[in-house]
Amino acid sequence: MNKSDARSNLLSKKVIDFSIGSDTSSKELMEKMSDMGGFSAKKVAEGARILRDMIKDSSSTNILSFPADIMATGLRGVIVEMAKRKWFDLLISTCGTLDHDIARSFGDYYQGAFEMDDAFLHGLDIHRLGNVLVPVESYGILIEKKMAEFLKNIDSDGIKDITTHEFCWKLGEYINNKSSLLYWCSKNRIPLVIPGITDGSVGYQLWQFYQEHKQFRINMLGDEQLMSDTIWDSKKAGALCIGGGISKHHAIWWAQFRGGFDYAVYITTAQEYDGSLSGARTREAISWGKIKEKAKHVNIDGDATLVLPIIASSLAGRTAHRALCANSTPWKLKEDDDVLIQRLLRLNSRDLQQEANCEIQKRKTASSRSRQRCSYL
Amino acid sequence: MNKSDARSNLLSKKVIDFSIGSDTSSKELMEKMSDMGGFSAKKVAEGARILRDMIKDSSSTNILSFPADIMATGLRGVIVEMAKRKWFDLLISTCGTLDHDIARSFGDYYQGAFEMDDAFLHGLDIHRLGNVLVPVESYGILIEKKMAEFLKNIDSDGIKDITTHEFCWKLGEYINNKSSLLYWCSKNRIPLVIPGITDGSVGYQLWQFYQEHKQFRINMLGDEQLMSDTIWDSKKAGALCIGGGISKHHAIWWAQFRGGFDYAVYITTAQEYDGSLSGARTREAISWGKIKEKAKHVNIDGDATLVLPIIASSLAGRTAHRALCANSTPWKLKEDDDVLIQRLLRLNSRDLQQEANCEIQKRKTASSRSRQRCSYL
Amino acid sequence: MNKSDARSNLLSKKVIDFSIGSDTSSKELMEKMSDMGGFSAKKVAEGARILRDMIKDSSSTNILSFPADIMATGLRGVIVEMAKRKWFDLLISTCGTLDHDIARSFGDYYQGAFEMDDAFLHGLDIHRLGNVLVPVESYGILIEKKMAEFLKNIDSDGIKDITTHEFCWKLGEYINNKSSLLYWCSKNRIPLVIPGITDGSVGYQLWQFYQEHKQFRINMLGDEQLMSDTIWDSKKAGALCIGGGISKHHAIWWAQFRGGFDYAVYITTAQEYDGSLSGARTREAISWGKIKEKAKHVNIDGDATLVLPIIASSLAGRTAHRALCANSTPWKLKEDDDVLIQRLLRLNSRDLQQEANCEIQKRKTASSRSRQRCSYL
Amino acid sequence: MNKSDARSNLLSKKVIDFSIGSDTSSKELMEKMSDMGGFSAKKVAEGARILRDMIKDSSSTNILSFPADIMATGLRGVIVEMAKRKWFDLLISTCGTLDHDIARSFGDYYQGAFEMDDAFLHGLDIHRLGNVLVPVESYGILIEKKMAEFLKNIDSDGIKDITTHEFCWKLGEYINNKSSLLYWCSKNRIPLVIPGITDGSVGYQLWQFYQEHKQFRINMLGDEQLMSDTIWDSKKAGALCIGGGISKHHAIWWAQFRGGFDYAVYITTAQEYDGSLSGARTREAISWGKIKEKAKHVNIDGDATLVLPIIASSLAGRTAHRALCANSTPWKLKEDDDVLIQRLLRLNSRDLQQEANCEIQKRKTASSRSRQRCSYL
Repeated sequence: MNKSDARSNLLSKKVIDFSIGSDTSSKELMEKMSDMGGFSAKKVAEGARILRDMIKDSSSTNILSFPADIMATGLRGVIVEMAKRKWFDLLISTCGTLDHDIARSFGDYYQGAFEMDDAFLHGLDIHRLGNVLVPVESYGILIEKKMAEFLKNIDSDGIKDITTHEFCWKLGEYINNKSSLLYWCSKNRIPLVIPGITDGSVGYQLWQFYQEHKQFRINMLGDEQLMSDTIWDSKKAGALCIGGGISKHHAIWWAQFRGGFDYAVYITTAQEYDGSLSGARTREAISWGKIKEKAKHVNIDGDATLVLPIIASSLAGRTAHRALCANSTPWKLKEDDDVLIQRLLRLNSRDLQQEANCEIQKRKTASSRSRQRCSYL
Repeated sequence: MNKSDARSNLLSKKVIDFSIGSDTSSKELMEKMSDMGGFSAKKVAEGARILRDMIKDSSSTNILSFPADIMATGLRGVIVEMAKRKWFDLLISTCGTLDHDIARSFGDYYQGAFEMDDAFLHGLDIHRLGNVLVPVESYGILIEKKMAEFLKNIDSDGIKDITTHEFCWKLGEYINNKSSLLYWCSKNRIPLVIPGITDGSVGYQLWQFYQEHKQFRINMLGDEQLMSDTIWDSKKAGALCIGGGISKHHAIWWAQFRGGFDYAVYITTAQEYDGSLSGARTREAISWGKIKEKAKHVNIDGDATLVLPIIASSLAGRTAHRALCANSTPWKLKEDDDVLIQRLLRLNSRDLQQEANCEIQKRKTASSRSRQRCSYL
Repeated sequence: MNKSDARSNLLSKKVIDFSIGSDTSSKELMEKMSDMGGFSAKKVAEGARILRDMIKDSSSTNILSFPADIMATGLRGVIVEMAKRKWFDLLISTCGTLDHDIARSFGDYYQGAFEMDDAFLHGLDIHRLGNVLVPVESYGILIEKKMAEFLKNIDSDGIKDITTHEFCWKLGEYINNKSSLLYWCSKNRIPLVIPGITDGSVGYQLWQFYQEHKQFRINMLGDEQLMSDTIWDSKKAGALCIGGGISKHHAIWWAQFRGGFDYAVYITTAQEYDGSLSGARTREAISWGKIKEKAKHVNIDGDATLVLPIIASSLAGRTAHRALCANSTPWKLKEDDDVLIQRLLRLNSRDLQQEANCEIQKRKTASSRSRQRCSYL
Repeated sequence: MNKSDARSNLLSKKVIDFSIGSDTSSKELMEKMSDMGGFSAKKVAEGARILRDMIKDSSSTNILSFPADIMATGLRGVIVEMAKRKWFDLLISTCGTLDHDIARSFGDYYQGAFEMDDAFLHGLDIHRLGNVLVPVESYGILIEKKMAEFLKNIDSDGIKDITTHEFCWKLGEYINNKSSLLYWCSKNRIPLVIPGITDGSVGYQLWQFYQEHKQFRINMLGDEQLMSDTIWDSKKAGALCIGGGISKHHAIWWAQFRGGFDYAVYITTAQEYDGSLSGARTREAISWGKIKEKAKHVNIDGDATLVLPIIASSLAGRTAHRALCANSTPWKLKEDDDVLIQRLLRLNSRDLQQEANCEIQKRKTASSRSRQRCSYL
């Protein structure tokens, strides 16, 4: 290609000045940001576009990974809505997500400031999480009480061994509150995998329980079975990774076994230069086969509490409720019937039993790959 | 105060989950972000509130400082609109702002990507500025041509010595294009001070001119006179500092001589730990008397291309055109009449001459401190 | 206190200019940095001082948490040396630490650059981890081979259930290579806890193994028992947290149950404003009771690959090998003898059997709380 | 190139673990960091290597740019030493550098902490600059007093118009203190250019002086003449850019007119994603022709107070005093003799007069391009 053609190719999309309107909607906001050319604004708009494509692609198994801290803020509302609308087929997070979801389903967190005096707060039995205040009665004490009751139920159900996603479903049923992420994961049967479940308040309660029930086990490897089943057969796959850490790594780790994601959006404040996984850009994942060379992908530098509400609001009109990707419900189908049914019945969950029966019914007739889930949709 | 009261005081404002609506306006977006509690979203909302108060306060002399890079993106549209609406009484920036404003008034910039191959671009005579592409014909060549003509005019006008804000007004008249920031600064007689004007393409052209006109001087100290006059008499003062560097420092530097700003919003990606002025939080300025102890102030961590369009859009309905603060036009009034009139006439500007005559007229009658400017408002 | 006294108090330590010598040792470097006053250099020196105190305090149970990425770089040498010298009584990390330690014990990683073309590398079967190159034959393939053999041994030993720290000790014995961190953890019987062990290559191999051994369980809750035992009885406690994520959180989480750390050094590149645990400063932990109000603590902003070699080198002369804190070996003592001995014997490890026998012997005579471990010291 | 060869090419330099020695010198530290492979440590070592080459290359005109904040810390000692040893032929900084250099030549700054209460400090007349405390008597008051005297001298000398580098030389003579950077710049006749000299305490004093001397001008364009002369004829050129802002931009700006730098080391904490000049990596400069495609260049992410003492200490033994690059003293030679001599004599400086006379002498005989400066070396 000669210089002139190369230039024409490159210089095809002008930078257009943002015009302030009187009542700009978030959808317009996103379109104007797309035209701005630079710097992060354009990437946010690009992220919104990729996310929209990912959600609209019914053949794509979509994964959402996120850290726990955002669940202490109003961003929880956005995560909940995304679970409600089934934009994602599988979620990955850390123990704190369970802690904050329980805490905020039954208690309140408050607005504070980063600059507050931590020794003073400590004296008042108030924890500080960034600029959020967590009173002790909304946290440790409350979680202990709720978990004690919940684990007693688990015990009564005779459960000695449970994967984290099953645990989350049971917990969501127990919470039974529409503000809760666990509730919606349970309701919509979206697996929430917590690869480091012992690290936090719920994990601590599990250990308390374990002291009296030394045979009780968290079946982490059962979660990996789910991850494998979910990813391996997916026709396409996409990921929205909020923040970094174990949740992000676990999402992209499994993607390598299907040749990488087709869609990937990272929202992060972490930096690249320190070699961290949290700061690694989407392109680094290409060398590992975790994102496809031809994937639509973008790395948005910014705080998710700012970026995600805008993106989600801009998509809300266009992406109403979605059916989970048909390929992404392997937990029901990959094992031979007896094992599956035993597994579901074992959990002693009304919903899951219904599902198990429903599944038995369906299997008698179903054959097409495009089947829809029998309930909840 | 006992513990219970201290707690009640602190725990007064709940964290409320963000709800996704179908067509959220930027105003609603900001309100919902305010309720989120954390983390940056809340600060953006706080920044919007402070900015609104600052703009609505007709007794406040408002200063906007910003770096040049954003003028290469669509954020220029927001800066221009703020000048058009006279939200600020004085602007401070760097030479690159003049470069990009000239370039984009007569040429185009294009959308690119951070990852592009810089050697390849160099071979194609395309500069990369982040993810913005600057073709050489829209930049150096174009600016040289325009500046040559403009400086010839300056020379014909017999100007041997000029402050940077006068230079910008003259340049704005010359550009005469409604997309231009310089045009609106000129039109609305808002001083744009460039304390490091030699550092960039316009500065380079000034030096070229200087080689043939060794007596020509930029009167930097005349700009300081303006800064002093603007700040010292102001009843109240506010600042929006976008980014850091010399522009931010110059804004807050002068504020110390009136006891500090009453309103201050910083939007920055710079970090605090390296001790830089760019990363210094609003609270550091309190120890210097550059921001008042009782001021409304917030530091927003984030990229202005993302933060500012949202804030500005959310304010647009509520803060239409504003009159410049009466106290903030000292460049007309602080010197004895003859000097002033000489200064204005000397610039050989139609607008300024009209203004000078108008001023002479006004002085014959005016006495009240609350006088309004005779033109443009 | 009057103003003059307050000033004298505050203004007690002058900023002293750094003088360049001709052959400055790392110890001198640290002393000069301490005198510099600002900005990060001083904090690095402060971190070195706290770390030295922590190491020299034989009554302090010391915890080291770190992310896996640094194990892909030469910083692994520093971590290994710290384990060799027993500066820490317990380590916490992520699965990748096991992956890289196996990989680099039997293969090589190479020096690359952040800017390399990831699609090109992918085509060459080379992964990029920041500026480190990981050839596939040194990673997935190698780890799979080694783990297959190792897990076969585990199976032969009849182990159906294992904590992560026991798993690491067994793995260290298997690796049997002095460059290996796992080797030294095993050799010095320092527990390495991996709260999210399924997340990575070793975790993947565990899952492969699980598919054929559906009864096999990782006993995460057994690790929590160890954490609890280690922390609860400690007279004092200290932590060096490198980076953030689950490892950092797990270290500080448990500290709250003893009233917080007495010493704490964070080295991180993460920022505070996003509310993340990774970016949370030491002072935030005070509000949670995870660090004591009176603790010696510092947050060092910087990349550990740069900061840690300097600190460790500066301490090397002064802090030779250390005995593990006597209080910090609860895994041997908290359970009744039979359970313990069963647990140790069950692991079928030569070293552990020896230790079990040694322990049986010792218990017959020991009674004082200040006993020393019978081996390795 | 086939895959196998491509791999061999890439996989040539192994990652080697850092070994802790007992008394590691900074030179050894740097060598070990070079072998570590990742992440920032390796870049620091690379920066040291490029800097060494740049300093040893007697045909390279070397530029150092830096922000003022570091002059408030002990890093000033490193900057001073580099001026003393003539590692750089030209320096660029901001007004604060003059402020802090005067202040610390005659007064003291103190060690503080970022977390201090700024309102409290304000009440005590102590300014906070990151974790450095600046008592008012060491700053504003002191600078005002010294500058008043100095400017009186300037006035007595009949100077009505002065470039910033001439101003700095005069000021250095006045300070006459070996701890001072200005002193060494003056002594070694290294130009220090301050493109935004009005922005700070010295600038403020200049404006005070201007109020009584309305004809006094800072000749910014004369500095640009120097920049042009210094760069244009240089055989090779190198830059160490500490931090960002106007200083960094001014250094790289001028480099484009000779086809870019041959050596470039950036040390910065600024990030790339926001499109800022401060955060722009070395490679972005390639597209502008500000760094050569074939240049040795590296971007070190980190705080200069930490990075630079290590680098400088490691180089100290190998790079003793250097002669300024012969090509880099154009301020003496580019103008016709009479103008030059007038200019030098006009400054009424003993040193400069001597130099002028010396120059007159030299010109009578000299013709070769490889002449050395007649004094100071």
